[in-house]
This record gives sequence, C-alpha cells and structure tokens, in this order.
Amino acid sequence: MSLKRQPVRVAVLGCGTVGSETIRLLRDSAKDLEARIGAPIELIGVAVKDKTAPLPIDGLDPAILTEDPVALAEQADVVVELMGGIEPARTAILAALEAGAGVVTANKALLAVHGPELYAAAQKNGVDLYFEAAVGGAIPILRPIRESLAGDTVRRILGIVNGTTNYVLDRMTLEGLDFEEVLADAQRLGYAEADPTADVDGFDAASKAAILASLAFHTRVSLDDVYREGIRDITADDVAAAAATGHVIKLLAIVERRGPGDQGTPDSGVIARVHPALVPLDHPLASVHGAFNAIYVESEAAGELMFYGRGAGGRPTASAVVGDLVTVARHGLEGTTGPGESTYLALPTLDVAKALTRFQIRLVVKDQPGVLAGVAQVFAAEGVSIETVRQTPGGPALGNGHANLTVVTHQATEGALQRVVAALAGLDVVERVAGAIRVEGE
Amino acid sequence: MSLKRQPVRVAVLGCGTVGSETIRLLRDSAKDLEARIGAPIELIGVAVKDKTAPLPIDGLDPAILTEDPVALAEQADVVVELMGGIEPARTAILAALEAGAGVVTANKALLAVHGPELYAAAQKNGVDLYFEAAVGGAIPILRPIRESLAGDTVRRILGIVNGTTNYVLDRMTLEGLDFEEVLADAQRLGYAEADPTADVDGFDAASKAAILASLAFHTRVSLDDVYREGIRDITADDVAAAAATGHVIKLLAIVERRGPGDQGTPDSGVIARVHPALVPLDHPLASVHGAFNAIYVESEAAGELMFYGRGAGGRPTASAVVGDLVTVARHGLEGTTGPGESTYLALPTLDVAKALTRFQIRLVVKDQPGVLAGVAQVFAAEGVSIETVRQTPGGPALGNGHANLTVVTHQATEGALQRVVAALAGLDVVERVAGAIRVEGE
Repeated sequence: MSLKRQPVRVAVLGCGTVGSETIRLLRDSAKDLEARIGAPIELIGVAVKDKTAPLPIDGLDPAILTEDPVALAEQADVVVELMGGIEPARTAILAALEAGAGVVTANKALLAVHGPELYAAAQKNGVDLYFEAAVGGAIPILRPIRESLAGDTVRRILGIVNGTTNYVLDRMTLEGLDFEEVLADAQRLGYAEADPTADVDGFDAASKAAILASLAFHTRVSLDDVYREGIRDITADDVAAAAATGHVIKLLAIVERRGPGDQGTPDSGVIARVHPALVPLDHPLASVHGAFNAIYVESEAAGELMFYGRGAGGRPTASAVVGDLVTVARHGLEGTTGPGESTYLALPTLDVAKALTRFQIRLVVKDQPGVLAGVAQVFAAEGVSIETVRQTPGGPALGNGHANLTVVTHQATEGALQRVVAALAGLDVVERVAGAIRVEGE
Repeated sequence: MSLKRQPVRVAVLGCGTVGSETIRLLRDSAKDLEARIGAPIELIGVAVKDKTAPLPIDGLDPAILTEDPVALAEQADVVVELMGGIEPARTAILAALEAGAGVVTANKALLAVHGPELYAAAQKNGVDLYFEAAVGGAIPILRPIRESLAGDTVRRILGIVNGTTNYVLDRMTLEGLDFEEVLADAQRLGYAEADPTADVDGFDAASKAAILASLAFHTRVSLDDVYREGIRDITADDVAAAAATGHVIKLLAIVERRGPGDQGTPDSGVIARVHPALVPLDHPLASVHGAFNAIYVESEAAGELMFYGRGAGGRPTASAVVGDLVTVARHGLEGTTGPGESTYLALPTLDVAKALTRFQIRLVVKDQPGVLAGVAQVFAAEGVSIETVRQTPGGPALGNGHANLTVVTHQATEGALQRVVAALAGLDVVERVAGAIRVEGE
C-alpha cells in the first residue's frame, strides 16, 4: 500500500473563458484527475486582472485570487497560463520555469514569437513546457506530431486552424453571401471578435503554422517566417467560381518540408504559409464545416492522417489544457520530463516564391479572336502549364464584347504564378484579373 | 558537451510485412531516430519462423536472425513484437518485460485477451508496454486517448477500425454489388485474406473495441465482453435501402460509458459492440472510404473529435510502431515510464441488450387494410416509438398483394428492439423481415 501523495500545487493565470472552464474541470473531475495523476490537485491561486471584478465561475475562494501572476507562478508545482498576449504571460512563464514549475499554456502568439526562449528556460530547469491547446483547441495534434510520429518523416501539413474564418467561409459557401455581411453576423453571434484582425487577416493561423512547422520539422520556425494572406478579399464571386469547378474555399495553414530532390527548387528547407485556397470537394478538409478545425498531415510512412474537432471554445480548450496538466503533473512526481524542443534539423525557411502550388485565375477578357493565344503565351513564357481553360459568355454585367476566362494551372512555383498574374494584368486583351486563388490538397 | 550515449539494443520479433517495414524504417531513419531518442539504435536480432527462408528485406545480416524469439527478447533494451497471434508472442513479451525491456507491439488479439497479464508484468518490472499500432494502424489514437484526453471524460467512441470490411462495404455501396462478389475481388486484390473470418465476422474489430474501451473508460474490457456481428449478411438490398434514406452502411466498433442517469437503464457501466450500422451521410464517418480507418470520439469537454488515416499496411503500421519505439527508448534512457494500465473506474460491462440504439426495419407485408395498425401495435407494446414509416409498392418480385414497409425507430434499448423484430416476424400480415439494421451516429 502506497502512502497518499502530497497534492500537486496548481496555479491558473487568467480567468477568462478558458481559465474558468479549466478551473471548473479541475474541480468537477478532481477524483478522476487524482487517479490518473497519482496525487490530488490543489488549486493554490488564480491570477486575474482585477480582484474586485465579478468572476465567470461560482464558488471560487476569493482568498486565492491575485493580481500578481508572476509571484503566483513562482509558488506552484504546475502553472497553467491562460492570459494570452505577450506580457505579462512571458515573464510569468519564465518565472515559473526558473522556479522549477512545469508549465501548460494555450498561448500560440507567445509561442510563435518567444518559443525558443521559453523552451530554453524549460530545458535549463529540467521541467516541462506543454501547449496542446495552442493549436487546434481540443484536437490532439501536437502530441501526435511530437510523439506518435517521432518514428516518421512529416512532409506536409494542411490545416484549418482558425474557427472564425472557417465559420465565415463556410457560411459564404452555404448561403452565397459576401464577406462583410457574414463577418458582421459572426460578430453578433460571438464567432468573431469586435476587432477581427487576428482571425480574418490570418495572424492567428500564422502563429499556429509556426508552431506546427517547428514540431513537425524539428526546426525553429517563428511567426515572421510564415507568409500570410487573410480572407478579407474573398468575394461571393470567388466562392461561386470555386463551387463551379468542384471546390470550396478554405483558409489553410500549410507547412511543408522541401528536399533538394523536389521539383521547382534545388534548395532544402521549410515553407510555411497561410492563405485562402481552393480545396477539392472530395478532400477530407472540404467537409470541415462551421467553426470546426482539422489538421491534415502527410507523412512518409504513415501516409495521410487527419485530426478533426473543436478548435476553440472554453470547454474544448480546457480539455486540452487539463490533459497536458495531467502529463506535466505525472512527470513532476516522477522527476522526469517529456520531449523538449527538437531543432536538430535546423532547416532554412524558404521564400514562399519557391512553394509549389496551382492557381485558378479568373479573367475578364475582350471577346475577340486570338485572346486565348495571347493569354496562353503568358503562361508559356513562365513555363507554367495549363490544366484547364473554361470560357463563358460575359453576360450583361460585364458589358458587351467581354467574356470570362477561367484558367487552372498545373503545379508551378508561387513565384512563376505571381509573375503570370502580373503579366496577364498588363495584357491589352485582358480587361481585368477577377481573381487568382491557389488550389491545394490534390 | 555530452558523451555519446550507448546504443539502444532493439530486437524485432517477426519479419512479415510490418516487421520488414519496421526494420527498413529503423535503418533508413537511423540519424533522425538517434536525434529524437538521444542515442543510436542497434538492431541486435530479428526473430523469424525459418532462418533459411528468403526474407522480404535486403541486406539484413543473416547472423542476427534467430528462430528463438524468447531468448532474443531477453537480451534487448526494447523488444518490438510483430509476430501476431497468441503464442509464442505472449511468452516472448512476458520474457522481455521480466528481463526489464520495454515492449512495443501491434498485437491486438493478444492485448484484447491477455492485456492485464502483460500490463501487470510491465508494471512489476517498471518498464513500458506500448501498442499504438494495435488500433487504427498509423492513426495516433491510443496516445491521444491515454494522454491528451486524460483531463476529460470520454462518453463514446464510434470507430471504423477494420479496413477490409470498410473496403468491402464501400465497394458494395459505390458499385451496387453483393457481399460475396466484392469479397472475392478483395481477396484477389489482397484487401482480404484467403480466410476472411477475422475481418468479416468482426473479430479483429472486436479486439480493437476491447482495447479502446479499456483505455477510454479506465476499466478492463476484454474480447469476451464485446458483442459482435460481422458483415456477411449485408446484402445489396440493405445497401440500397440505406442509400434511399440518406445513409451508408459501415461496420462500427462502438464503446460507450453509461451513467446511472442515462435513458434506458439504471445501471452504470460500459457497453462494447461491433456490428454493421447505418450512418447518416453527413456524419464524418460516412465519408471514410476504401481501406481507411477513422475513430470518432465523443468526450464531455472536448466534444466530438475524429482521427482518420490508414488502418493497415506495412509502412503505415511501422510508423506507429517506430513512434512508440522512440518513446519507449527515451523512457528507458531516462529510467522512467509512460502511464501504465489505468483501471481505477472498474466499471461493469453491461449486456448489449441495454445499449440504446435505433433500428431501420424493412418488412414485406400483405397489402391490405389494417396492416400498419398491426405493425404499429407491436412497437407500442415494447414502448418503442416510431420516427418514420415508408410504404412502397411491392413490385413484381414480391408477387401480387405485397408491399414494402420501412420503419425507422426512435432511440430504444437493443433488447426492446430485438423483441419488436421477433414479434413482427410472427405477425400474420408480415410476410418476412427483410432487414433490421441499427442506425448510429446521430
């Protein structure tokens, strides 16, 4: 018979949606967590912005509230950081690690910028830094990449990692509405923030792309290394044109490892990018609806894998946070740690111009002989081959004498495709480039 | 600067498809594995049935082959068991654990029957027993359930965990063919074994259901606890009738935790079952095609999660095996172990009659007044409510004076639904029960 273990002293920094659901889960599952960890959990403190403000959780002892996250962090065995943002989260996490506490965080923005500093502090002090909730919310994706795929070589990850933009694009697709209209409604319904920049301009997805690339490719990749385009410019026309060719538009985070033997570049390295893309309807990512997330992994031996679930929300995120807490607490009791930062490959980040992709380009052209020859010449000059061309009558909206031309290319480098689009815009016979969107997932 | 670590001595037991791909992966990824483990791997031996038979892998030093898996297992730091079957796998794994080696296995049949014995030996000797490849092939599912969801409460898992039956049902669905026809073709193409019993009669899926239930519900569940029906009796008519109501037929492994507050039973416990089921077309499991697997998890805080990928095949399975090997080798170097068997909930297994499900029942009835009233009375007598009834003309195949009646029930206990089917078969106005299939995933 073993003696009852001392409790694991847990501090929660931040008591917003995720923080309060985490505290609730710790309380409601106390017996299960004790059995799974091998010791009870004691919540020793909760750091809040304002001790006098009403809390989103009942029955919390006011005596454990503090407005000093750093001081609290230094007293715990495990620190759960759910404040978000860079400071004071960074200072509090560093203080916890220096004091020998394991840390669990959901803070993707912090990790994507200051990850190496935090990892180094964790390693120096022999403690854990876990952050499953930082990418994909409740979806177990980081642990599978770090541990389950540790015997394999990940080639590429395509992720729908931002629920807000997937919700907006999904409703645009299902209801034929324009971006601004759906965004306003999403804000009313709480699916989008009052300031939606982090989501719709792709910053949130880019942070997650940096984290995914770092883990998958054993290389440091930070937010600055990620090429980023948001969804503000996606129109109802783009969505309709996608549907007409059997596609749906998704905001994808794409991270890929290029080898010197791959097409298009002699360089080895990592390319990380976030942008809207056409995804074929029969691809598993195409049927990810609403605010759900999914991460599609292409690995050399495992082949294609997909992980699907709720990418945000208080309770789903709390599930991932408390899952990490169980692991970190177990490690603490056993005096061990999980795998730390792994950067041994140290691959360079390649410019997005070297990415291989395909474009669907929609042109409004003059309806006259020789147009297609002129257009095709532009593609040929850049060595880009065309897969399909579809010409449709202009209709009254375009005025007389115009036609729509939709060109889908074969795979080429992003750089060559961008040069094609620029050259097309300069052609006499091209009235305007109505759209140019990448095609991914084939 | 750290000194170079001693190699981790690895033994591979079995050199069939998965064994040879595992050896290939160990060889081709040697540098990556060394970086990830922190020490090189040395393959000290491979146990085969017949040392003189040609091997499915080139360049293997014949001196490391042995026909004695038990003796080899006792000499390694990590033993990878890929022989399959109960013996000599069981004896070799026990010998390895007793000798202080960590063990990685893909042997679901062994785990579903002798899991507790193996776990106990691992715990007694302070070493790891890992088996990610035993369920879902390359799909990381056991580590997510054991570790990522350790802060959550899993309620139910619905899994497509057998690639052969999914391949057969998928082709029946897409091509309108009958079971025997597709099975024969699957056998020609290598998707089904010459003796297909383990797959088509649901034994393989039932072993996996037992493993999933054990981990998800922290309770011992063995193969004998799993209710099992295979897909031999599924006809092209069943598939067509499913399609007519917006469903597709899948062989599902379903494991669920019932609480005393749940509908239908006052008992707490676990129900584990494998049987064909109608799945609505808009459920994520409906679009799992070919030999792919997917596991759909319903958890209290995380909500719905799905894990998708290749459930079989040499290289995908080897990916999962070597991923486990990296973890077990790291633990060995650090003198620690991962979470062992967790059975603290010790829930009873409930009879499948207590499962809540819905039935789609297809009847051939006499086309005369009062038939529906008589049929409806049978449902009412068992307290089963009807969701939809659809009556269609019999057509020449049924002979004159007959009609088809398709009834879909609301949720009720399996026991009540089975009694309804038996009573319907005895009704004068019912010519025959043409089919009765459960409806799941709603």
